[in-house]
Amino acid sequence: MNRLLAGSADVVRTFPSLYAPVARELEEVERILAEAIRSANPAVAELVEHVAHFRGKRLRPALLLLTGRACGRLVPAHAVLAAVLELVHTATLVHDDVLDGAAVRRHVPTINAGWGNHNSILFGDYLFTHAFHLATTLGDIRACRIIGETTNRVCEGELRQGLESGNLALSEAEYLDIIDAKTAELIACCCHLGALFSGAEPEVVARLTRYGRWLGIAFQIADDLLDLVGDEEATGKSLGTDVEQQKMTLPLIHLMATAPAPVAARVRQILSGPGCPKREALRPYLTEHGSIDYAYRRAEDLAARARAELTCLPPSPCRTVLELAADGVVHRQN
Amino acid sequence: MNRLLAGSADVVRTFPSLYAPVARELEEVERILAEAIRSANPAVAELVEHVAHFRGKRLRPALLLLTGRACGRLVPAHAVLAAVLELVHTATLVHDDVLDGAAVRRHVPTINAGWGNHNSILFGDYLFTHAFHLATTLGDIRACRIIGETTNRVCEGELRQGLESGNLALSEAEYLDIIDAKTAELIACCCHLGALFSGAEPEVVARLTRYGRWLGIAFQIADDLLDLVGDEEATGKSLGTDVEQQKMTLPLIHLMATAPAPVAARVRQILSGPGCPKREALRPYLTEHGSIDYAYRRAEDLAARARAELTCLPPSPCRTVLELAADGVVHRQN
Repeated sequence: MNRLLAGSADVVRTFPSLYAPVARELEEVERILAEAIRSANPAVAELVEHVAHFRGKRLRPALLLLTGRACGRLVPAHAVLAAVLELVHTATLVHDDVLDGAAVRRHVPTINAGWGNHNSILFGDYLFTHAFHLATTLGDIRACRIIGETTNRVCEGELRQGLESGNLALSEAEYLDIIDAKTAELIACCCHLGALFSGAEPEVVARLTRYGRWLGIAFQIADDLLDLVGDEEATGKSLGTDVEQQKMTLPLIHLMATAPAPVAARVRQILSGPGCPKREALRPYLTEHGSIDYAYRRAEDLAARARAELTCLPPSPCRTVLELAADGVVHRQN
Repeated sequence: MNRLLAGSADVVRTFPSLYAPVARELEEVERILAEAIRSANPAVAELVEHVAHFRGKRLRPALLLLTGRACGRLVPAHAVLAAVLELVHTATLVHDDVLDGAAVRRHVPTINAGWGNHNSILFGDYLFTHAFHLATTLGDIRACRIIGETTNRVCEGELRQGLESGNLALSEAEYLDIIDAKTAELIACCCHLGALFSGAEPEVVARLTRYGRWLGIAFQIADDLLDLVGDEEATGKSLGTDVEQQKMTLPLIHLMATAPAPVAARVRQILSGPGCPKREALRPYLTEHGSIDYAYRRAEDLAARARAELTCLPPSPCRTVLELAADGVVHRQN
């Protein structure tokens, strides 16, 4: 059985209605993906097989296909592009796991836990180059250029986040700028390519790209909230890694900016001190000062902005699903 | 002063005549490279600035340009492609330094020594994606596809090497296959693109690609020899890392295959034991059993094979330099 086609329970639980209108095309994406990263070498093939176990939400492929169909007609290129962007996303996850020293992702051991950091880095590179190569098989330089620009921004965002880790004075504007680059850019690219390859008008392509961007920022705020207040069982991954690495996210930035000086000092002490788990120590302060609520409200505002961009589209099941997705990314448990 | 244009002393010492016929075009490559990886973010810009300090030999750009000129006329695309392949090479070096835990490259601290492993991984990714993006700016899907195929093979080779580390029974054929993928493939790609973009006949393109492949394998054998018997002062990098990681290279493979059983057992013991430095402990065995000489002879044979491919070209200063390069890669001190 193809493992890349298996285990979509998480996906269905999180976004029950997101996948239905493009279910057949998503299966095609899985086939393209599995074919693109296949290796004739047994040791490499074993790694490829393993990564299939922690397949993600397939949120990016779904958004690309839904956007494409909401804007017009799906063409074969849509599924290839969806596979390319999912591969880029998977490559960043593999490298993220090295960074975080994470031991578990999607209920299975991470690549670095099983194969060591060295091989995780090389496998992430393998996924990156296979993504780019797959993009070139379309024979469309426009797609390659858009993907190249996006991945440049994603990597610069990841790098900025890494370099800012430990900077407890990170501002909300800087935080939003970083998550725009490291997360929203790739999601915006999905919507951009989905609309573009359906032959949508430039104005519609621009609005769908903005939809993806607002959605992506909301998604990352929600993701960062899960790392602080989520449930490890439900998410299927190690949580609290952001605070362990002194990576400032929206609730903490809000808390530091609004809490009285003694509270801010205590929070700073928890963040920089050696004690573990920091997540549990921080939670009462975050709740009491409304920082969790604040971050949820910001995410909801962005989701509303995303929905507003969709008014340029005629009513359709896919447009409805895209509207629901904007809520789904904020109010999810995993 | 642009650091990417500075400090070419190493280069000149190693391959004195390699760069002269394309010196002006190599300066253009440096300009393109610096421009391609520039960042508006100060923290990222600092990392970019640092990587310029350990600029490599620029062997790949030089080979691409020399091949191009030896086959016909250089066009502006040649310099862009040369920058792309040098960026890919630099990305693998940055990730290699993480793998090796190396502290020094080209006489300056490695990225991971200065910024930590996390940021090194992200910076390597940044270089990878900027390489691909730069390739797309040519608007030629053919170049993007060739580069995508090559980088796929390079990463699979690196990954295979990583997965085989600790396998003291690696055969010579497996070793050659791995270095063909991880090193020779990229050098062959330089010669391929150089010839192709000069409008050379398919048969000439194929022969120049083979030239690059033989040269690349010879280059890597010589590189592995330097790691075993080279001088840290001359190479400007930490040596002995292959044996410390139980990465089998040609002299050791020869030794294990030809030495009497008690010697092979002792060598295995040194390789798997905790003692350091292994390199010094292994050297007498390698010398006594002719394993160093054997590896040099193999590299020389490959260099001769590379030279033979060049007979399809009319005599020219660039052809002469390419012939000399085949010897240069084997008999170098750094």
